[in-house]
Amino acid sequence: MTSQYATRLADGRELIYFDHKPGFDRSAADQRTDLDPAPPASEIRWDPLFEEYAVVAGHRNTRSYRPPDSQCPLCPSRDGQRTEIPADDYEVAVFENRFPAFSLAAAETPDVASDRRFASAPGAGRCEVVCFTSDHGASFAQLPPSQARTIIDAWADRTRALSAIEPIRYVFCFENRGEEIGVTQAHPHGQIYSYPFVPPRFARAGAAGQRHQDATGRCLQCDQLAGELAAGTRIVDQTASWVAYVPFAARWPYELRIVPRDHVADLTELDDEQRDGLATVYLNALQRFDRLFDAPAPYIAAWLQAPVGQFRSSWHLAGEVFTIRRAHDRLKYLAGAESSAATWINDIPAETAAARLRDVV
Amino acid sequence: MTSQYATRLADGRELIYFDHKPGFDRSAADQRTDLDPAPPASEIRWDPLFEEYAVVAGHRNTRSYRPPDSQCPLCPSRDGQRTEIPADDYEVAVFENRFPAFSLAAAETPDVASDRRFASAPGAGRCEVVCFTSDHGASFAQLPPSQARTIIDAWADRTRALSAIEPIRYVFCFENRGEEIGVTQAHPHGQIYSYPFVPPRFARAGAAGQRHQDATGRCLQCDQLAGELAAGTRIVDQTASWVAYVPFAARWPYELRIVPRDHVADLTELDDEQRDGLATVYLNALQRFDRLFDAPAPYIAAWLQAPVGQFRSSWHLAGEVFTIRRAHDRLKYLAGAESSAATWINDIPAETAAARLRDVV
Repeated sequence: MTSQYATRLADGRELIYFDHKPGFDRSAADQRTDLDPAPPASEIRWDPLFEEYAVVAGHRNTRSYRPPDSQCPLCPSRDGQRTEIPADDYEVAVFENRFPAFSLAAAETPDVASDRRFASAPGAGRCEVVCFTSDHGASFAQLPPSQARTIIDAWADRTRALSAIEPIRYVFCFENRGEEIGVTQAHPHGQIYSYPFVPPRFARAGAAGQRHQDATGRCLQCDQLAGELAAGTRIVDQTASWVAYVPFAARWPYELRIVPRDHVADLTELDDEQRDGLATVYLNALQRFDRLFDAPAPYIAAWLQAPVGQFRSSWHLAGEVFTIRRAHDRLKYLAGAESSAATWINDIPAETAAARLRDVV
Repeated sequence: MTSQYATRLADGRELIYFDHKPGFDRSAADQRTDLDPAPPASEIRWDPLFEEYAVVAGHRNTRSYRPPDSQCPLCPSRDGQRTEIPADDYEVAVFENRFPAFSLAAAETPDVASDRRFASAPGAGRCEVVCFTSDHGASFAQLPPSQARTIIDAWADRTRALSAIEPIRYVFCFENRGEEIGVTQAHPHGQIYSYPFVPPRFARAGAAGQRHQDATGRCLQCDQLAGELAAGTRIVDQTASWVAYVPFAARWPYELRIVPRDHVADLTELDDEQRDGLATVYLNALQRFDRLFDAPAPYIAAWLQAPVGQFRSSWHLAGEVFTIRRAHDRLKYLAGAESSAATWINDIPAETAAARLRDVV
């Protein structure tokens, strides 16, 4: 049973400790007196030609960039170092990002859209940092299952809490890992972005699932999963409650989709047994990525949850984990084909990737 | 007036020389006897959950990777070196890619889709390499306007020729420049991908433009351009026939949209004067990118043309040029927000980027 303790940082941002069991003292106060005021809100702009949003967050250019380990802001406050986490230890800690892409403060800015060619809205929402462990040198893949379970509980709890906040429409839990994809803090951590709109890739998935449900009465993801299980060639791992497979049309050199066998809409709907099962299957997936090559994999891991108040019955929760490493000395770069035409060219067929991911246990 | 000379390489691939004026002898035959047979065709797979294509091209993993300058396959054949271009000099040369993402040979493969959950089609189409100059150490930005004009003519001619080939539905002319975005050949060159489908970002743009035309009788891009000219803050360059501006909802740190004032659907419709004007405005744009920081910009430059036989009256030609460099020592990486949620977070407001691009002449 995960317990939690919520407090505020010196500049008013919320910090929540998640612990595997109760009884820890997490009441230490943030002693910092030199925090800059909150940066200005970001702006969401709409491109009517391509029908896509861009988030303009000028202040993020000043965010801390690869600080030395001794000044890590995600470590506990110890040895005279005052960090984002006042306690001298923690299991899992979640706090509001100091350089957020979205902020609830922005919700108070009036909507400035008048000319539809230049539609813009305040970047209202909330961005949180999820510290996976107090151990600066660890990685998610190395955590014990009980710690992974605490993180899953934290994701689920934050999804529930953030989904209840107006104007949030999508809660996106993800981890970027590795300098190769631009991670600026080495400490093991993920992020939660809560968007005031449904990000376009998820909006399209929601619409596709809804059309399939309307036409067949069935869940598209459930049908896809049944097809993958029947084919077998792309399955990497399965447990009583979870299946991990390389998607038939995988975009990335190595990519896994992690899906519960039961039809659930988001992480909040997972019961105790499903969460414990996820801890195992998820750690197993990350470990496979780290064993593909002789160095830890740069990866992106993301939870595709149902949007807030939309597509709730047709959406089927899925995790996706993918790496940009396509060979021990080569990365997959996004160039014209991907970044402009939005069509991925993948050198490694899904069946080949699945065989390798199966073999690296 | 650009003249052309078409021939075949030793393995049957087509090579076309484009010259500023007639009279050059480009008849040298390809002497190589050790060319491997054409690689197997790629496969286009459809992901029904996210409604997007992925192209599986396993053979591309063996393509030549950063060869030493002395073995550059895009240089003319000289000094005993036999390259992809048999002549001992050229102005602009276009040839079929030896490791193509799409190939017309694939069109003969029967369509293997039966189960809609695993829809797949042969990777039919054609991929060409466009050598911008025989000078290995040059860059597009440094070429004289007459050479840029020859390249524009080559793009237009290839667009016309490729559009006439069944089953091609989209002709995409682009350049990836810089190791930072994974370019594997240093020689100045671009590529032309002809797709047997309309890439999704362009399909969405086509549908948006069509809806706008149906609703208002006007072109969406023309309306957008008029708005940008009225606002002025994001305009970087204008000539009698062209305007270059940073899009209001730019996704990239520095990004330019280059648009003809007249409503034309693709490069083939540009007249002589518009092509000469483009050579100037395009060189100017690339030079601005190279002057932003102390090193040449890694950039992607792409032509957004009307799809073959679709949206021809509503589509308005546009070029886009963007760099992933956001500061002299920092790149913009695509992480979870972009690669999974498909929503770009941009540190640099369009107006700031436009001011910098204006100032670096």
